[in-house]
Amino acid sequence: MTGEVVLLDFWPSPFGMRSRIALAEKGINYEYKEEDLRNKSPLLLQMNPVHKKIPVLIHNGKPICESLIQVQYIDEVWHDKSPLLPSDPHQRAVARFWADFVDKKMYEQGSRVWKTKGEEQATAKKEFIESLKLLEGELGASLTFGGENLGYVDGVLVPFYSWVYAYEKCGNFNIEPECPKLIAWAKRCMEKESVAKSLPDQEKVYDFVLQLKKIYGIE
Amino acid sequence: MTGEVVLLDFWPSPFGMRSRIALAEKGINYEYKEEDLRNKSPLLLQMNPVHKKIPVLIHNGKPICESLIQVQYIDEVWHDKSPLLPSDPHQRAVARFWADFVDKKMYEQGSRVWKTKGEEQATAKKEFIESLKLLEGELGASLTFGGENLGYVDGVLVPFYSWVYAYEKCGNFNIEPECPKLIAWAKRCMEKESVAKSLPDQEKVYDFVLQLKKIYGIE
Repeated sequence: MTGEVVLLDFWPSPFGMRSRIALAEKGINYEYKEEDLRNKSPLLLQMNPVHKKIPVLIHNGKPICESLIQVQYIDEVWHDKSPLLPSDPHQRAVARFWADFVDKKMYEQGSRVWKTKGEEQATAKKEFIESLKLLEGELGASLTFGGENLGYVDGVLVPFYSWVYAYEKCGNFNIEPECPKLIAWAKRCMEKESVAKSLPDQEKVYDFVLQLKKIYGIE
Repeated sequence: MTGEVVLLDFWPSPFGMRSRIALAEKGINYEYKEEDLRNKSPLLLQMNPVHKKIPVLIHNGKPICESLIQVQYIDEVWHDKSPLLPSDPHQRAVARFWADFVDKKMYEQGSRVWKTKGEEQATAKKEFIESLKLLEGELGASLTFGGENLGYVDGVLVPFYSWVYAYEKCGNFNIEPECPKLIAWAKRCMEKESVAKSLPDQEKVYDFVLQLKKIYGIE
């Protein structure tokens, strides 16, 4: 029994993409509601009064906020199909560690790449690549996707692949030569329908970042 | 079967206190190893090479890093005694939400109270109290402790009670008149042995903060 499932989301959000992927993996039909973040809906403000942020998953009228918590919820409620978290407690702790690492580093470090320039940007790129290399070291460990089953950390990290082109264009650098295996992993993930249909086109994300730069007055 | 359990910790750390409380709740015997954070042990650097931070829980030689992940691990491995997380997936998601809220707000906002002065400190105190009031609203909901069983969010938040005196003295303000029910909840928690023996004396923490202020050159 699925019940009524609604996702309040915003299309370029890598956090929203995580829940889209998890719901797709589980084959859950849901209503996708696009939010205008400059004019948030009364439903969003009511369902996430603390942070007032997307994504919000609403299941039978009850909200679940924060994307990592949503993915764990989705995995726990619909546990029979496509398990995401490992069943062994230690492996689960390690998966949570890397998901938390992605959460703490990727968005903030990636944003600094496109928001800054000069020396500040050089530092941002260096730190971003360092994090990606640490993640590359988890291929075959916490990043389990090899062509069949998607794992928790796979689904938590792969949304940032849709932002790679924007990071590269804005930062005037190439990520693939630094982390070839990680990019190959992302491309393999993209062959999976649950991922492909949950991620927007990289060029569309780049156009969106260019708009953001205009709004923020960043040359 | 408990196996070998070691906790790398530092006595004033509210993060380490979380794991101490969880282990005490489960009745697990473990070896406590105090770290000198200005001269970190080879074991700490080996067990947490990414963040190089305490606390690290080591179970049968395998590390578990990040306090919220540790408490969940402890609850999952030793699930029969004193369950911490609720069994219902939605209640579990709500508990994780508030634990994440505590993680994102308390330490950072509390630190700003003792590290700043003037207008900046006034803002820090205001924001800190706002967060505490939101948490006070969770009494009887996510903060479940009423005198018997400790819940996940109880154990995640209550360590900050050992820092309250330091916050108050450094910030020259009183928290209890603002959040009387939350302070009453903390005092009830302190009557529990698992909490009492895991938290240091408030005045000892205040002395430690005074030392930090000297080291950082804060008057």
